[in-house]
Amino acid sequence: MAKELVFGHQSPDTDAIVAAKAYAYLQSKLGYDVEAVALGEPNMETNFVLNYFNEPTPRIIKTAANEVDSVMLVDHNEPQQSVSDIADVTVTHVVDHHRINGFNTAAPLYYRAEPVGCVSTLITELFDENKVEIPAQLAGLMLSAIISDTLLLKSPTTTDKDRAAIKALAEIADIDYETYGIEMLKAGTNLASKTDAELVANDAKSFTMGGKSVRIDQINTVDLNEVLAREDGLKKAMADEAAKEGYDLFLVLATNVLDSNSELFVYGEPKATVEKAFNTTLKDDRANLPGVVSRKKQVVPPLQGAFEN
Amino acid sequence: MAKELVFGHQSPDTDAIVAAKAYAYLQSKLGYDVEAVALGEPNMETNFVLNYFNEPTPRIIKTAANEVDSVMLVDHNEPQQSVSDIADVTVTHVVDHHRINGFNTAAPLYYRAEPVGCVSTLITELFDENKVEIPAQLAGLMLSAIISDTLLLKSPTTTDKDRAAIKALAEIADIDYETYGIEMLKAGTNLASKTDAELVANDAKSFTMGGKSVRIDQINTVDLNEVLAREDGLKKAMADEAAKEGYDLFLVLATNVLDSNSELFVYGEPKATVEKAFNTTLKDDRANLPGVVSRKKQVVPPLQGAFEN
Repeated sequence: MAKELVFGHQSPDTDAIVAAKAYAYLQSKLGYDVEAVALGEPNMETNFVLNYFNEPTPRIIKTAANEVDSVMLVDHNEPQQSVSDIADVTVTHVVDHHRINGFNTAAPLYYRAEPVGCVSTLITELFDENKVEIPAQLAGLMLSAIISDTLLLKSPTTTDKDRAAIKALAEIADIDYETYGIEMLKAGTNLASKTDAELVANDAKSFTMGGKSVRIDQINTVDLNEVLAREDGLKKAMADEAAKEGYDLFLVLATNVLDSNSELFVYGEPKATVEKAFNTTLKDDRANLPGVVSRKKQVVPPLQGAFEN
Repeated sequence: MAKELVFGHQSPDTDAIVAAKAYAYLQSKLGYDVEAVALGEPNMETNFVLNYFNEPTPRIIKTAANEVDSVMLVDHNEPQQSVSDIADVTVTHVVDHHRINGFNTAAPLYYRAEPVGCVSTLITELFDENKVEIPAQLAGLMLSAIISDTLLLKSPTTTDKDRAAIKALAEIADIDYETYGIEMLKAGTNLASKTDAELVANDAKSFTMGGKSVRIDQINTVDLNEVLAREDGLKKAMADEAAKEGYDLFLVLATNVLDSNSELFVYGEPKATVEKAFNTTLKDDRANLPGVVSRKKQVVPPLQGAFEN
């Protein structure tokens, strides 16, 4: 069987990196020739996780077709979030927990998606179904991904399956996930070390909505004031990035991961659609969105809905 | 939980009808309020199956949004193969074994696809994973769907999972599936009772390829001469239907289900793309395609490929 690459989305977060490693491990046990790679540098949180569990950073690729004919996607499906030459390779497997959008294939494939909080939760299920044991180190990585995606099970995306998976993985990894989780989330929010340009790019994803190119970034923090103090710089970075990449609309959601409160920054148009989506009025291109912590569940669907109506 | 409808594709075949019933049964056991419906009258083969196992014909719907907010799709995902107002409802679940094309959602969902011969094979797996028992009557229906989709395990779409499922289901249903299968396939091929217009419509599906509206129908028979004797009438029916519905290209694949040989009829343009796809030369808008029995595996992918290159 020809080798395939396994990877998560661009601007990888902990789940994108970890789910690729976990799925590649599982598929290798099932007889596939696979390598887990990444579409960008791990962020600070992921680096903390990889260091903590003594796991190497994955190889970073810019294109896939120069190495393989086929790939497996984790934690994404939308082509604009994938490898730049995704149109030139065949996608044989997808494991995801997002909406499906713009994803087209010529032939049948394996596609496994559930509306759970984290792809590593789904992969935990796949290990179980295929009766493959999860090594302790990998269990530690996978529970880190669940902590990251669900903000320690507090995000509204959290499901009973995520709660069950994190407990099972914590047992295998022999770790107190709550203590570890707070340490991990804090490690990922050292904003002082990042430039404004890095902050608006690090966790950003691209979408097409109503024919517009929409960019949505999320900044996690343990103190929103730290973000608000940099408002002017962040707005300039958003404007620069939008001009450079041709985004029509750029949203940056700054989220306090400890108390589930977010501040939204908006650049570009249509701003009225953003106001309608979140039933709010922008002041100085900003709005407070209490309780909004999930891009996937609380930002993308209402925005898509507002674009369509 | 609000009621949801479960259905397969337009011009339903046995798998489209049966998989909807099987998935609805499973989901009802898992706590969902669901009803299996169909997007058209069952064909002769399906009627034979429903009669054989004393199962009622499903209710036929033309639209969904007038009854429910959400639906579950089986055996298809492409919107033009689904209910006419699919854009007005939310798809919460898909179980399928086709390519993914033009299927977009605003929110995450359950999506389960594998490149197996029959969706009822996948649903057999889902019963197992969820530890729900398959009643004997339902097992009979599901094995009929597998026989139908895989032409008694002879189609190149057949996988080990289909072979395992049909055996497990035959045991539950207490049936000799080989004897039953030949009887069932013959029951579905009584072409004499159908008009030319019915023959080119009964198992037809619509696709968008290279911006063209492509219609592909399949006629199963136990004697290709029976189809060839009606060539003029079939071609006229194809032309009439294409004019009425605006199809650019109309393919009808007549397949001898007993010896895996097919005759292809082509109406419309681009015919050169069809010739390239099947590496053949059309004579009188016809070509013999020995060994081609699967639209999904042997017709759609090469045609899509020829449109793209």
